[in-house]
Amino acid sequence: MQAEIIAVGSELTSGHVLNTNSAWLAQQVEDYGLKVVSHVTVGDAADQLERSLRLALDRADWVIVTGGLGPTYDDITKEVAAKVWGQPLLLSDEAMAHIDNFFKDRSQKATANNKKQAMVPKGAEILANPSGLAPGIWLKNEEATLVLLPGPPHEMKATFEASLAPRLAATAQSAIRRHALHFYGIGEAEVDSRLDDILPDNSNPLVAPYAKGGEVELQVTAYGPSDQAAEDLIKPVIQTLIDHFKDYFYGIDVDHLKYPVSQQLARGKWSMASAESCTGGLISKWFTDIPGSSAYFAGGICTYTEKAKQYFLQVQADTLAKYGAVSAQTAAEMADGARAAFQTDLAISTTGIAGPGGGSPEKPVGLAYIGLATPTGTFTWHFQANALQTKHRSAVRDAVGRAALFHLFEYLKQNPEALS
Amino acid sequence: MQAEIIAVGSELTSGHVLNTNSAWLAQQVEDYGLKVVSHVTVGDAADQLERSLRLALDRADWVIVTGGLGPTYDDITKEVAAKVWGQPLLLSDEAMAHIDNFFKDRSQKATANNKKQAMVPKGAEILANPSGLAPGIWLKNEEATLVLLPGPPHEMKATFEASLAPRLAATAQSAIRRHALHFYGIGEAEVDSRLDDILPDNSNPLVAPYAKGGEVELQVTAYGPSDQAAEDLIKPVIQTLIDHFKDYFYGIDVDHLKYPVSQQLARGKWSMASAESCTGGLISKWFTDIPGSSAYFAGGICTYTEKAKQYFLQVQADTLAKYGAVSAQTAAEMADGARAAFQTDLAISTTGIAGPGGGSPEKPVGLAYIGLATPTGTFTWHFQANALQTKHRSAVRDAVGRAALFHLFEYLKQNPEALS
Repeated sequence: MQAEIIAVGSELTSGHVLNTNSAWLAQQVEDYGLKVVSHVTVGDAADQLERSLRLALDRADWVIVTGGLGPTYDDITKEVAAKVWGQPLLLSDEAMAHIDNFFKDRSQKATANNKKQAMVPKGAEILANPSGLAPGIWLKNEEATLVLLPGPPHEMKATFEASLAPRLAATAQSAIRRHALHFYGIGEAEVDSRLDDILPDNSNPLVAPYAKGGEVELQVTAYGPSDQAAEDLIKPVIQTLIDHFKDYFYGIDVDHLKYPVSQQLARGKWSMASAESCTGGLISKWFTDIPGSSAYFAGGICTYTEKAKQYFLQVQADTLAKYGAVSAQTAAEMADGARAAFQTDLAISTTGIAGPGGGSPEKPVGLAYIGLATPTGTFTWHFQANALQTKHRSAVRDAVGRAALFHLFEYLKQNPEALS
Repeated sequence: MQAEIIAVGSELTSGHVLNTNSAWLAQQVEDYGLKVVSHVTVGDAADQLERSLRLALDRADWVIVTGGLGPTYDDITKEVAAKVWGQPLLLSDEAMAHIDNFFKDRSQKATANNKKQAMVPKGAEILANPSGLAPGIWLKNEEATLVLLPGPPHEMKATFEASLAPRLAATAQSAIRRHALHFYGIGEAEVDSRLDDILPDNSNPLVAPYAKGGEVELQVTAYGPSDQAAEDLIKPVIQTLIDHFKDYFYGIDVDHLKYPVSQQLARGKWSMASAESCTGGLISKWFTDIPGSSAYFAGGICTYTEKAKQYFLQVQADTLAKYGAVSAQTAAEMADGARAAFQTDLAISTTGIAGPGGGSPEKPVGLAYIGLATPTGTFTWHFQANALQTKHRSAVRDAVGRAALFHLFEYLKQNPEALS
């Protein structure tokens, strides 16, 4: 079953707003066995949309349109869809009741414009929108299914999940299972070159590698006649991949090291602190991104001056003078200092040169040291960002932060329970 | 002159990779007076691409294709373009010399696959690619101009800027000036409703409002027969808008408050520190995102426990007991404590409930207090995230952080020079 996705909005064609809806929708509907063959983006112009819609309905089994369901004059999707579908627009009591309730809850009244949002092509079914006023619309005949979804991403996603996903599941002819395995510390080319040996017949499940910000993701997709059959197909392949790349593996369906690290800290009843220089608060932000992180994360300190390193973390003036702020010795003392001050089991530290300035032949941009203070000693690691990363300050900081998390992750694998 | 943009790649149609090229290209080419009427994304399938290319050439003056110029079998753009254009592919000496040089620099030899990258449709001109092997291609006849660009974003952008932009500039019939004005603390609907009065004839320059993460951006675009004419048109409108919304305005062509705040700190020779609870290091990260921030940012501390607030920031146990960690009193003591410990002129603090848990009727999710310690006293502000923001921990944190930066920005407007 082939699908096309049409996004409507002049802010998209002009490039002022990035269209993230089409990619999100494509991933979702492919999980239900549809094959997305193209995306089209058109502005708020009826003739453009009409032409695109006719073409799409002509060649695809499913056409999913997002955007242009709002109350203003430039929201034209329903009018054009009704015309192409050959049906008049009628007021939907169901949609109007939803809109009236919305305003009643706010002690306001719907305007004439809002009534426009309750008009639907004759024969359409309503796809309830839990996050906004404009409902989605479902039109089906023998040749095609046409779905209209709202444009604001949170409304589009909420409508998809609440109202469209169950219908897709009901019509899906095969079950699909998809998982993403995440690896740190190995390149995409290296993974790719080894895949042929590991999986000579790479078809179902299909394993596809993707490079993601210095990490590698292996997307594993299995199709089967039932959920169970797809699950049975995918499980052994995932295990094979994890076993083969176990030194680099950090999680399934998690797209950041902060998740498995936080999980292990919580599970092992570890308490944690951070002391950052070049990463400037990024690691602290990552820990506190996670709801409930106050259970194990006591806090972090960003010391951007030598004085602050000495005052808060008791880094010795001698150490700074002899080895410099960017050194393994300073990293170790920063970690020790944070562990002592926050009275935690563990403390991680970073000190380095984020760039673009501040580098030297001995200590180039992208050089960093990472420290980890633990109940049984303090460890340090040397890190050097690669040539692509050193072009961007944000890439260097991100790479240093992820390296620090990976060292912590490795430590927690060896030491699952708090030792203190 | 109408333009269409076609992006090629099955990783794009499946949604696994987000297509950022089309939006970027649209913004660029509209600056040269082209009007982008649609974007199309197709997979690595020759029939799909051929159909889309024929349609686009049929209705647009300019067609810009990105992707599918690589050396592997699934890179089909040139073959399809040559077929549609009605010309054979020939080896380009110019493109081959570039490829040979590339490998010579690396003491390697080009492979047969690489030769594929030097094949171009007869009559094409080469658009040099400074960042990779695959050159761009320029084809022009009386009806249309067809441009092929590489797909990897850094190669696409480099090729555009080095080789395509100069050609667009040479053919542009009018000059364009575009600026984005940024406002904090006012809603898009409010701005929109006032625009009619301020600019009764909103056409050239055209002012368009966009809501961006709780802020408002006004994009102002002027066309004129020359650069100077466009500049003369746009200047007074920008000044009118800034004057009218001056309480909310924070910058031109900067998309984050951290930039003007950092600029003012540096210019006024202020020194700065942060003390964060609910924002967890985010503000410290923002300050240190800016190259050279060590000149004014001494550091920040994220205190995620009451103990850490007391130990590092001398928040009084009495204060925490009487008012709670989320209170104006605690925010004030945190800011005072950070200012004293880091020995800076200024210190900003946040304490609040980021969610999703931890809220209560008295102190709901999204409530925060912001403190600012200065040489002449300490100020605090109450903040409550809106209903949309409180659904997401990251949105609450971001909103609290931006509110803190805005209060700091306002203070620095009143006090441009360091007082200490």
